[in-house]
Amino acid sequence: MARCDELARVSATPGAIQRVYLSPEHARVNRLAAEWMREVGLTTRQDAAGNQLGRLDVARAPDSRSLLLGSHLDTVPDAGRFDGIVGVLMALEVVRLLRVPVGDGFASPFPFALEVLAFSDEEGTRFGKALLGSSAVAGTWNDEWWALADADGTTLREAFLDFGLDPSRIGEAARRPDELVGYLEAHIEQGPELDRGGEPLAVVSSIASARRFQLVVEGEARHAGGTPYDMRRDALLGAAEAALAVERISRAEHHIVGTVGQLEAFPGAVNIVPGEARFSLDLRGEFDGERDRVWDAISLELDAVMGRRGLRWSAREVHSAPAVMCAPLLRDVVGEGIRSTAPGSDDPPVIFSRAGHDGMAIGSITGIGMLFLRNPDGISHHPDELVSTEDVGLGIRALAEAVLQLAADRG
Amino acid sequence: MARCDELARVSATPGAIQRVYLSPEHARVNRLAAEWMREVGLTTRQDAAGNQLGRLDVARAPDSRSLLLGSHLDTVPDAGRFDGIVGVLMALEVVRLLRVPVGDGFASPFPFALEVLAFSDEEGTRFGKALLGSSAVAGTWNDEWWALADADGTTLREAFLDFGLDPSRIGEAARRPDELVGYLEAHIEQGPELDRGGEPLAVVSSIASARRFQLVVEGEARHAGGTPYDMRRDALLGAAEAALAVERISRAEHHIVGTVGQLEAFPGAVNIVPGEARFSLDLRGEFDGERDRVWDAISLELDAVMGRRGLRWSAREVHSAPAVMCAPLLRDVVGEGIRSTAPGSDDPPVIFSRAGHDGMAIGSITGIGMLFLRNPDGISHHPDELVSTEDVGLGIRALAEAVLQLAADRG
Repeated sequence: MARCDELARVSATPGAIQRVYLSPEHARVNRLAAEWMREVGLTTRQDAAGNQLGRLDVARAPDSRSLLLGSHLDTVPDAGRFDGIVGVLMALEVVRLLRVPVGDGFASPFPFALEVLAFSDEEGTRFGKALLGSSAVAGTWNDEWWALADADGTTLREAFLDFGLDPSRIGEAARRPDELVGYLEAHIEQGPELDRGGEPLAVVSSIASARRFQLVVEGEARHAGGTPYDMRRDALLGAAEAALAVERISRAEHHIVGTVGQLEAFPGAVNIVPGEARFSLDLRGEFDGERDRVWDAISLELDAVMGRRGLRWSAREVHSAPAVMCAPLLRDVVGEGIRSTAPGSDDPPVIFSRAGHDGMAIGSITGIGMLFLRNPDGISHHPDELVSTEDVGLGIRALAEAVLQLAADRG
Repeated sequence: MARCDELARVSATPGAIQRVYLSPEHARVNRLAAEWMREVGLTTRQDAAGNQLGRLDVARAPDSRSLLLGSHLDTVPDAGRFDGIVGVLMALEVVRLLRVPVGDGFASPFPFALEVLAFSDEEGTRFGKALLGSSAVAGTWNDEWWALADADGTTLREAFLDFGLDPSRIGEAARRPDELVGYLEAHIEQGPELDRGGEPLAVVSSIASARRFQLVVEGEARHAGGTPYDMRRDALLGAAEAALAVERISRAEHHIVGTVGQLEAFPGAVNIVPGEARFSLDLRGEFDGERDRVWDAISLELDAVMGRRGLRWSAREVHSAPAVMCAPLLRDVVGEGIRSTAPGSDDPPVIFSRAGHDGMAIGSITGIGMLFLRNPDGISHHPDELVSTEDVGLGIRALAEAVLQLAADRG
């Protein structure tokens, strides 16, 4: 927990937490994580996408397959101190519990190596595209992403070079399915279900499907004083109606959430009718089909709103991820881990994750399993985000037990 | 018109027009204006608020009173090339038409000096407070404004120092009523009335009353995936409802326009429910009472919207200006000027200005008169803003004629 605090102090914003991909803060937390990785005996390296990795080899078989344990170190703006971070630190503690001394150092006691992955970009805060770090590891990097630009106009390619990474070597970050045993991640729930149910830990069944869009509404910028209402084509009012329509349509469906998190008007002067508005849409559901039907309904509503106001609209899809199921074996061992550790957890809760996670990308190269920690009041992506020391302790033991179960099963 | 183009090239934004108060572009256009002022025989100086002034003295009475002619050189973001600018340049042409040669130079032929004022801040783009330049001339500068900050956090006081101005000397920009004959300004209409009526020029009866507010809506930032709708307090959706309420309530009143020109959500990430939203409100009406009743109605509606959504809201009034009437004498001479110049203008149109102008500030120290130029399709505060060369030519002659009429009346 002290290390969560220490990482929280590495921020682009004084008094708040913000660490984005390929920033000076990213470099600093990688150095810290590498130091902590070495402290538990891991051999460290930074991969071609800026992910920080640490590996504990099997004593006599350094080329064996790996079980990946990890989460991410980047944050949203004005973030909490546990989302992602606590999963990386818990993975290190799991290694500490399981490692065996060999010579001057330590080794994995299993027939597979243990690797801790600290992903560099899960949130997508800087470039609007999430899971950049884990997509590189999954080998699903898309060369179109190089042209993505941040708010200052810096492209992803330029940011790579500034950070000291070589874009042409991005393929080297990719891992092959045949070298992997699976991927296990602990994460706070980012929702209220465990807290409402009074349970410390849960098995994750699947990660929700998500689509993200950047939308643009175009009207005409005009003088706010001189332009009567019948001559206005106010892009901001179109966007305002759109944001309310997203809420109304998503809310009517079970297990769908739609969120407009960004909205800006241009030119953005107090005395000009906005000629353009840009906003984001984040749409999630348990199943892909339901999610896509809601997007279709929103699109129809936007056609109607914008048509009525003399506006044009367009949407660019910046992220699309199908629902990802956890691997049955990893789901089972996480459940066993919780059962063996948490008091009164004979039948640990199974929930689907509405939030996205690195496992969505990693799921394309190996089976994934996830363990959720209780998140008081479900507050996440916010400075008040919490997790209790007790729950983290239970989670570490449950995750270590899951790895032991997996080794027994594989043995 | 070539000079309008030349000024348009002085911009903070390549390919667009943007010149804000106390910027490098402000300094550059002041130098250009000063050069053009000297070319028609004016003695130039920059005042303590960064306004560029030029004076043509009466031949034998350098201490006589002045007739002020002018407008402003600053712009909104992504502006047109005529708003303000054309009024400054027309004032210079009026001087060129009316000046008499004396010795090596020129003098005013009237019992009063002619002064051309190029105001430095009318739009309020940078600090959210309009009429800073003319308020300094009117002696109505408010020391609270020093703490106003621009989008980068630079305060007005710091910007003064960076520009090479001394905040402690701001009082020196103020003019005394007893040294002034009046203030005349030509400006594009920034509305469609003259264009719709097929008239080139109009007499302005009054400048509309205006209030501007910066509003803040506070909710709670939460994870977009994990937070069910019943736990959300989404500040952006509150602001969206507010913007639509402003339109609905203002639209129901005659001669009232309310505009939300700026809106932003915080923390502003695609995957976070916004915990805060900030937006501007610009409210204008022909009469103060009507305008204030509309604000009261909007406030009541915001109480209802925010209460329903579990949000708090607050408003800070950043600008308030009562309706300002043009002086009867100056209104008459502008009418005479138009009648004597524009074809078929026996009965020139008289309209009230929905847009604010420097005369709102100057009206507190001397009588003001304004002439409006036809603005095709009423497009202003936009790159497509237009005025025809013919109308500007008519306007220059009408304004010169108005000065001659004023001198005759005063003679």
